[in-house]
Amino acid sequence: MAQNIYDDNDFFKKYIKIPRQAIGLKAAPEWDSFRSLIPDINGSRVLDLGSGYGWISRWARENGASQVDGIELSSNMLSKAREFPSDPLINYVQADLDTLEALPHVDYGVAVSSLALHYLENLPRLVDLVYEALVPGGSFVFSVEHPIYTSPRTPKFVEDSSGHKKWLLDGYLTEGLRTTTWFADGIRKQHRTTETYIMTLLKAGFTLSAIVEWGPSLEQVEKEPKWAENRESPPFLLLKAIKPAD
Amino acid sequence: MAQNIYDDNDFFKKYIKIPRQAIGLKAAPEWDSFRSLIPDINGSRVLDLGSGYGWISRWARENGASQVDGIELSSNMLSKAREFPSDPLINYVQADLDTLEALPHVDYGVAVSSLALHYLENLPRLVDLVYEALVPGGSFVFSVEHPIYTSPRTPKFVEDSSGHKKWLLDGYLTEGLRTTTWFADGIRKQHRTTETYIMTLLKAGFTLSAIVEWGPSLEQVEKEPKWAENRESPPFLLLKAIKPAD
Repeated sequence: MAQNIYDDNDFFKKYIKIPRQAIGLKAAPEWDSFRSLIPDINGSRVLDLGSGYGWISRWARENGASQVDGIELSSNMLSKAREFPSDPLINYVQADLDTLEALPHVDYGVAVSSLALHYLENLPRLVDLVYEALVPGGSFVFSVEHPIYTSPRTPKFVEDSSGHKKWLLDGYLTEGLRTTTWFADGIRKQHRTTETYIMTLLKAGFTLSAIVEWGPSLEQVEKEPKWAENRESPPFLLLKAIKPAD
Repeated sequence: MAQNIYDDNDFFKKYIKIPRQAIGLKAAPEWDSFRSLIPDINGSRVLDLGSGYGWISRWARENGASQVDGIELSSNMLSKAREFPSDPLINYVQADLDTLEALPHVDYGVAVSSLALHYLENLPRLVDLVYEALVPGGSFVFSVEHPIYTSPRTPKFVEDSSGHKKWLLDGYLTEGLRTTTWFADGIRKQHRTTETYIMTLLKAGFTLSAIVEWGPSLEQVEKEPKWAENRESPPFLLLKAIKPAD
């Protein structure tokens, strides 16, 4: 099963302070790109895999989703999501995405997942479940840490003598566990190549509709100069796949 | 127009000695992967973009292609390809892939290109031409230098204190010209992201059928230990796209 670092209370106390949790989608710099991949959800049932605080689940309801099912990775997250004003048409459940046996429904128009799937040990299993749970023509839009970002055994930028940042890339073709430090030691995630993400979708029966190797725009860097290094080496990979219509 | 380094005689004298030119497909470590993406070509007309010595063009004829058109980037290459025993069903022509106005025919079952398209300044234009020249259901299989490989302004591996090789990655999201040294100074190629290669195919109307981020297998490294570093950071990107059947 996937590690559930979000139920580590010391980690969680630090994690809930990062802007994308405390402030929401406006503080997630890739949100505009992510949103642009989501089709019109008015009247659709939406699945949110790893829904966290529920920012995307609530956004979906504000944009006309008929019902949203949010799968929470941890009980801490479930409690946090339930602190927000309740919406009877958002249903949060806690489950391990590596082992859950079925998704809540089988008629989703759209499935989304933000920065959760790189924790899974068994990605093809979940992708097959999502494929089965989407209606024909339905979309699966997700982001993960970019393979370039998850690859190194010791992830870091170095500066050359002119002050230019360079990402020290190794291990790209050696997939599997990476253990890193992020608010806590021992964070376990799974490195997969872009090839593996895309071929897992295609093998499940999906058609690839879009890929975004996300890094900040020049305008975003102007507002947040600390993000400049993420143009040297992109932090996120966004994919959109479609279940073919019958 | 694309630089034509192959008409630089000093460069060419060195270039023709590299194993994949002098020996052929057996000396191209990614050939088995590339070949596995090519569908059955028996009876098909085949287009070979940047055909070089003609190794793939001749392989296509040996595997039943009814006719092969090889587009040569340089007159040096054209002369070299014509040194091989002639086959009336292989037709080599010289053209700049950045500016040629039409492909020789419009009924190809398969178009292939090995390590040529990263020299082009205008990729979408050629991809549109290939799309138009394929029959419905036809395949476009090509390899380029991997975006991770073309990205750095100063491409190189460094060794850490334990002797582990790391690729110094920068500039990934800054597409465009890279000038490097490879048998000669001033080799001009174009850095594009994996996103751009794939989205260019999808925008032209293709469906993505396969992606391979190629690096040597562990077995290949055992035979050629100098290739080990290419598992840390992959050198080639292979893509297979299909023109939807009517």
